[in-house]
Amino acid sequence: MSVNSLGVDVGGTNTSLGLVDEAGRIVARGRISTLMGEGPESLVERIASKALSIAKDETIAQVGVGIAGLIDHHKGIVRFSPNLVGWKDVPLKEMLHERFGVPVAVGNDANVIAWGEYRFGGYGTEHLFCFTLGTGVGGGIVSDGRLILGANDAAGEFGHTPLDPDGSRCACGLRGCLESYVGSRHLVALAKRRMKKRSHLARLTSKEELTPKLLAKAAREGDEVAQRIFTEAGERIGRALGNVVQLLDPEVIVVNGGISKAGDLIIKPIRESLRHYTMPLRSRRLRVVKSKLGERAGILGAAFLPHAFTA
Amino acid sequence: MSVNSLGVDVGGTNTSLGLVDEAGRIVARGRISTLMGEGPESLVERIASKALSIAKDETIAQVGVGIAGLIDHHKGIVRFSPNLVGWKDVPLKEMLHERFGVPVAVGNDANVIAWGEYRFGGYGTEHLFCFTLGTGVGGGIVSDGRLILGANDAAGEFGHTPLDPDGSRCACGLRGCLESYVGSRHLVALAKRRMKKRSHLARLTSKEELTPKLLAKAAREGDEVAQRIFTEAGERIGRALGNVVQLLDPEVIVVNGGISKAGDLIIKPIRESLRHYTMPLRSRRLRVVKSKLGERAGILGAAFLPHAFTA
Repeated sequence: MSVNSLGVDVGGTNTSLGLVDEAGRIVARGRISTLMGEGPESLVERIASKALSIAKDETIAQVGVGIAGLIDHHKGIVRFSPNLVGWKDVPLKEMLHERFGVPVAVGNDANVIAWGEYRFGGYGTEHLFCFTLGTGVGGGIVSDGRLILGANDAAGEFGHTPLDPDGSRCACGLRGCLESYVGSRHLVALAKRRMKKRSHLARLTSKEELTPKLLAKAAREGDEVAQRIFTEAGERIGRALGNVVQLLDPEVIVVNGGISKAGDLIIKPIRESLRHYTMPLRSRRLRVVKSKLGERAGILGAAFLPHAFTA
Repeated sequence: MSVNSLGVDVGGTNTSLGLVDEAGRIVARGRISTLMGEGPESLVERIASKALSIAKDETIAQVGVGIAGLIDHHKGIVRFSPNLVGWKDVPLKEMLHERFGVPVAVGNDANVIAWGEYRFGGYGTEHLFCFTLGTGVGGGIVSDGRLILGANDAAGEFGHTPLDPDGSRCACGLRGCLESYVGSRHLVALAKRRMKKRSHLARLTSKEELTPKLLAKAAREGDEVAQRIFTEAGERIGRALGNVVQLLDPEVIVVNGGISKAGDLIIKPIRESLRHYTMPLRSRRLRVVKSKLGERAGILGAAFLPHAFTA
């Protein structure tokens, strides 16, 4: 019998569970519907019963949860989550602790992913910035081996880096946020608008819906409109990362999230752009890499989240 | 006999020393010429002899030094300093430790000031961002009570926040850095260019040289050109601070440096501007304040710098 940690990733539709051993291997997995409308007690109960069924007779030594939104990390309270509409100030840590009887931690999803990348990504650094590129753009900071949360638990809001004071209004209330330029919906809309008749992209989208994945395929196969969309996104991301580097001086910047699967299509323009926005230093240690963990980072970071607050 | 710490602030022309008691009071002061051309051994010797003369028979329990430039904080090596031209990779910590026989720390001046503000400013927070407005614009970060140094000891480079990718080239190699818009030289040059004949500012400068202090006086006395210069600088600083807030989520932003003496002339526009670049949060804890310590922050932070690395 080994000692395992349970990592839980609460999404708007589904909630994923993973049992993780001490070496950071996911040894069992499960998935349930989130069903936010049924309330916190129901979710906790269903997480517990799925956890017990995947753990079989293995011990669960600790539990961690990642969730989008504003989390009180020290108290483990979900202040507000876009994935759990109607939930407000839910003491999720306390509820899970009562049910499991082991240490529990609750964290913002982007912070949790950054923690997972730091603990298990094998980048060999104590100074890591991780951001996710998907529908939304989130960020998490590890500095000197510590998760940076900030005074309001709102640190790492990379997606809401203001890039253009005259830009369009973002859902967050600000103008010209990075997310509104490089979020996946924006990239898809841009591709639809710019797509040329009889182009490779047009042929591909005549058969299936346009997604970031299909956009990447088109770019790889030479479609210039698709390539340009990734290059432009990379340029803007590099500009926003310039602020991150000047302020935080990370050693490794990890790109996670759905769009990161485009690989060099997006990573190369980010690197190229960042060079223009980073103060030259004799032998600066800094690299931008695609996540090695991908979707596993959320489960791994959650499973070991209790360590983030006791270090 | 009480236990005191020695804080040293190495400038390009002068080096200030202060003996600080356990409550953070500067109980004795001294000043020597830096004379960078005479080399590190000479400076260490003169610091030591001045320190002993101001300490009289008081014990010096630890020594800290603040210095502009790129410092290896953990090793206490001055990699490069604009104030010490020609010095390269000087093991200042080791040299001072040999001379004083007590714990020594060496840090970048802006980090040291931030540490002083955190320890002795009485702002009641563990999450502080401090920046200095003067010829240069520096920044230092304290998050969760810890000084953030970064992977290359280059964190907190607030002055080199890229504001405009098409802006003019800064000495650091980047374009459109905050410092090139709000550094004191730029403000003075701007005032000279815009100054109206027979204005209040013109009358004032007919008698004495235009300095930021005189510019503040003119603004306070109603000169519109002078007022506008502070307002514009505040707008740009607020924009750059938006990035700081989104990434680090500080509770208190402390404005130090010569131009901070203009008080509300600069603080108010910073606050006003920052509001437009900060994601609204239900009851966000965040305030922008003028330094309470002023020039003392550098000596106090240096004196207690050894604590920053052993926390």
